[in-house]
Amino acid sequence: MKRVTIKDVANATGLSIATISYVLNGKGNIPEETRQIVNDAVQKLGYIPDYSARSLVSRKSNLIGVVIPQAEPGSTLMFQNPFYSEILSSIEYTARKNGYHVMISGTNADEKYLKLAQQRNLDGIIIIGMYSHESYADLTKANIPLVLVDSYVDDHHFHTIKINDRYGGYIATRYLIEHGHRKIAFLSGALRESSVNRQRLAGYYDALKEYGIPIRKDYVLTDQINFHAGMHLAQIVKNSTDVSAVFCTADVLALGVIKELNKNERVVPGQISVMGFDNLEIAEFCVPGLTTVGQDIYQKGKTAVELVLNHIKNPNIGKQEISLPVSIVERESVRTIS
Amino acid sequence: MKRVTIKDVANATGLSIATISYVLNGKGNIPEETRQIVNDAVQKLGYIPDYSARSLVSRKSNLIGVVIPQAEPGSTLMFQNPFYSEILSSIEYTARKNGYHVMISGTNADEKYLKLAQQRNLDGIIIIGMYSHESYADLTKANIPLVLVDSYVDDHHFHTIKINDRYGGYIATRYLIEHGHRKIAFLSGALRESSVNRQRLAGYYDALKEYGIPIRKDYVLTDQINFHAGMHLAQIVKNSTDVSAVFCTADVLALGVIKELNKNERVVPGQISVMGFDNLEIAEFCVPGLTTVGQDIYQKGKTAVELVLNHIKNPNIGKQEISLPVSIVERESVRTIS
Repeated sequence: MKRVTIKDVANATGLSIATISYVLNGKGNIPEETRQIVNDAVQKLGYIPDYSARSLVSRKSNLIGVVIPQAEPGSTLMFQNPFYSEILSSIEYTARKNGYHVMISGTNADEKYLKLAQQRNLDGIIIIGMYSHESYADLTKANIPLVLVDSYVDDHHFHTIKINDRYGGYIATRYLIEHGHRKIAFLSGALRESSVNRQRLAGYYDALKEYGIPIRKDYVLTDQINFHAGMHLAQIVKNSTDVSAVFCTADVLALGVIKELNKNERVVPGQISVMGFDNLEIAEFCVPGLTTVGQDIYQKGKTAVELVLNHIKNPNIGKQEISLPVSIVERESVRTIS
Repeated sequence: MKRVTIKDVANATGLSIATISYVLNGKGNIPEETRQIVNDAVQKLGYIPDYSARSLVSRKSNLIGVVIPQAEPGSTLMFQNPFYSEILSSIEYTARKNGYHVMISGTNADEKYLKLAQQRNLDGIIIIGMYSHESYADLTKANIPLVLVDSYVDDHHFHTIKINDRYGGYIATRYLIEHGHRKIAFLSGALRESSVNRQRLAGYYDALKEYGIPIRKDYVLTDQINFHAGMHLAQIVKNSTDVSAVFCTADVLALGVIKELNKNERVVPGQISVMGFDNLEIAEFCVPGLTTVGQDIYQKGKTAVELVLNHIKNPNIGKQEISLPVSIVERESVRTIS
């Protein structure tokens, strides 16, 4: 089936391609009568306007780029952590309901991505969870809405959506202290500047200080953020510390910890209590159910898209910063000790 | 920063836009000297060709559409099942390494999506796990490479990539029988025509027949495919049947079953054995580790993209059908009984 082109519409109506393009894009001062002729021909011939043509005229693509970090260079998307798929679901859904589509890339938000954004006339870019400012400073040249999810980079070119990570770290640690724990390990991914982990660590320190519990550097352990890293950190906890509780800055870490500790006998929560962070769906379905710091991942993704759309509607809008609340979700992985 | 356009290149060189477009797209019979002039000007001005312009000329977009089913109309992507995020990772990665990008849509592959595919000049479409033929018969009009993942629809317009689902159902059931089980329930999502579940059920029957075990319709239970459904089915298994083992056609179902059965005491695998299907990453990290039918989800996604790319390179290629192997992954959720 040969595709109907704008040229066919021109031939059928005797009008110029430019005129038809104006009508289709709602531009120019075209008489109503002419508009009617064009619209009738479009209908009759079954012409479907091409995004490419519209994009050339309008510099718009109705396409939002979503950048998801790679676990390591050249690796696949960081989908080992269901957090990314949960937020991506919400981004795609919200975009679609508003007439936009989503192009995903598991890449760095660098100069190369800037070029891609320009080539594709992206209408906005959402960057999930990266850390160094240098890595996406180039993008500010794109002159389109840019949204950072879960980053503490302070740059007026970027809107940000995040949660109160420091408070999350604080209430997680306070919860453990209030359940009788004083020897509490902090298990985390890398503590890079501008990262959520750095903030959660600050919250952990806040709670320890408030309750007069000395900070111990050997209780702060870091690795990557995945199940295997959790298992590895659990071995260190078991063999080299005397802690009664661990606070993990990601549920996937916590699940790895529980797997390792409960391999042969149920150590969690009887001997060691485990607190997570994220409240992934799996946190409810693992055994024991994971007590964790809950954040609204769906709302986070939805808001990221809304920040892009608001900026498109109001090009002169200033930097928007949104922070969503966190709260403890109680399940079975923390025990009260005396 | 104003963006450099093809017009600027034309002004700088004194050549027509058409000539420059020909050079950039490697088309037409343009003298080498002229090509050199164009390429020098492009370099010097920092002109970045626009995908929209290229797409208008070539009817190509370097964009592959991926359709992911919705759990229910108007709902979010079906990301509750990590299977979708794992395969999407692999699709995005393989596409990117080959110079393509991925546009995801949580929608039906219907007439509306056909229109979208034409508007965007998609170079190919990958449809993951839908069932009824009617729902995507419209797409055959798109005249671009179409790949079905995990569908038994038989239509020469579609390439297919799947696993041997019937054999998977057979070896899962045989494994349980060989471990002493004769009262085995089959827990599954909907058993629609052309679905993988229907095939896995056939494999379950194959094994029962081979070992002379009577088929019992009350042992075949269906619901949706998610954690909650698994918990719900587990209640039926516990209260209304006398089975010693259950075979679940998805790991997420199996995890829900284990959660429900092990809520108060460890019933799995002591009293009831559980077999899954998929070998999701979480199958290794849940407690007890899930014995399951392993499939190579990464390879499945990679192959789906390769089928699109092969078709683009060889437009007259016939229908390609690829089936990947399955095998049992032994962990701790199945017990031997006598």
